Amino acid sequence: MTFPERLNAAWDAHGSLLCVGLDPVVERLPAAIARSSHAILDFNKAIVDATHDLVCAYKPQFACYGSAAAEDQLLATIEHIRGVAPDALVILDAKRGDIGNTAAMYAAEAFERYGADAVTVNPYMGGDTLKPFLDRADRGVVVLCRTSNPGAAQLQGLPVDGRPLYLHVAELAAREWNANGNVMLVVGATAPDELAEVRALCPGIPFLVPGVGAQGGDVEQVISKGARADGLGLVINSSRGIIYAGGGKDFAQKARDAAQELKDTINRYR
Amino acid sequence: MTFPERLNAAWDAHGSLLCVGLDPVVERLPAAIARSSHAILDFNKAIVDATHDLVCAYKPQFACYGSAAAEDQLLATIEHIRGVAPDALVILDAKRGDIGNTAAMYAAEAFERYGADAVTVNPYMGGDTLKPFLDRADRGVVVLCRTSNPGAAQLQGLPVDGRPLYLHVAELAAREWNANGNVMLVVGATAPDELAEVRALCPGIPFLVPGVGAQGGDVEQVISKGARADGLGLVINSSRGIIYAGGGKDFAQKARDAAQELKDTINRYR
Repeated sequence: MTFPERLNAAWDAHGSLLCVGLDPVVERLPAAIARSSHAILDFNKAIVDATHDLVCAYKPQFACYGSAAAEDQLLATIEHIRGVAPDALVILDAKRGDIGNTAAMYAAEAFERYGADAVTVNPYMGGDTLKPFLDRADRGVVVLCRTSNPGAAQLQGLPVDGRPLYLHVAELAAREWNANGNVMLVVGATAPDELAEVRALCPGIPFLVPGVGAQGGDVEQVISKGARADGLGLVINSSRGIIYAGGGKDFAQKARDAAQELKDTINRYR
Repeated sequence: MTFPERLNAAWDAHGSLLCVGLDPVVERLPAAIARSSHAILDFNKAIVDATHDLVCAYKPQFACYGSAAAEDQLLATIEHIRGVAPDALVILDAKRGDIGNTAAMYAAEAFERYGADAVTVNPYMGGDTLKPFLDRADRGVVVLCRTSNPGAAQLQGLPVDGRPLYLHVAELAAREWNANGNVMLVVGATAPDELAEVRALCPGIPFLVPGVGAQGGDVEQVISKGARADGLGLVINSSRGIIYAGGGKDFAQKARDAAQELKDTINRYR
């Protein structure tokens, strides 16, 4: 299956554009779970079991696993998702970017070791460093374009020939990098006007949209400015707003409630 | 000890600006070692034992360990370096870059889990994403500026107000990001004129220079265009040119010979 086919199937499975970010930080886990020696995996399993029929994707944040020496729990989480939610995409949020022979190893790590469907990558080193990822037509390559953090514009907004840098990235994605149709772009919900500009340049490319929920992005704006003409084209991520919706014994139900509400809100506007 | 003090001690210890890149790829290891279940560690130990009196730093490439599920061997390699070469810097080449709370986890991974002295980071997401690294005055933050790969200029060379993007990164590093004096910049040996431009903007900032050896950069040019007025300011990396200098039983001696030759060549020109 090509990546666009895989993504369409993920959107279709439950009529959802929602992605749940799996960003477990041991200090923030419910007390009952945090004591386990594989607390991250236990937590993720509970979240996935409670939300699998509401989402098109899960996005594990690599830093949460790397800082906790929990690569085995990341792998086991992805295996659990495959069993419970076979249609859901797994987007490994690792923001890779390195020279060609090294990039090939990062592609192997994401797609073989972890078996991810897609991985986030950083374009600063140029298109040749993305090629080992782009060459995998069955996997998605999610290129940082206009991110959701407060200081995103410091570089991404610099004017190049009268247009901000992130629009050059968007144009390179549309014109040069997307021969296999497997490129996605990260465009943050916190910058809705930028979302509209990138959509105008890239009418067909799917966006991964972080920044709703804890970071403050507005869902209606995201849909009206970022959706494709077919009402699709968006994978809208919420991490902390869903996984930490509750902190007690009912954290999984609270996560489900938050995921249901965000899914419904998204679908109301598209 | 602050990071600049640590770096000065590393340069002084053996009068060397040479950094050896520890990029072990199992398929390329000598046959006698490749059969071991911890071949990467065995190889790295042999390289470190053979070169520790010739270098100022070792630079493990994270992708080599991540793609091989060998985080434990990365950690053991760093512990081995601490025992054999206590003055040498360990620069973790992971090219991290993510939003603030995630960046803090990547900083914890590099500096606590692995105990690295410095880590490479990508500036595309802006200075707020570098802050958790920059705040650690005892550790180095090695910011990608002008990289050594063939396609580096595709983004880094875009004109911003009449100057290429990488010079804006250099200026931000000098003007905003270096309050703790712990910033380094990656400037590739394959672009000597760019090295001179960045040095002119950043007279005091140390550079990590990849691209000599296998990638073709010229040592004389690197020194004449990149060294600081004090003859220091450079950490010159070679990975494949040293660690794969020989492929037989004498690979460690061959690596030493290559390291000795490159160290001497560097010192001849400064």
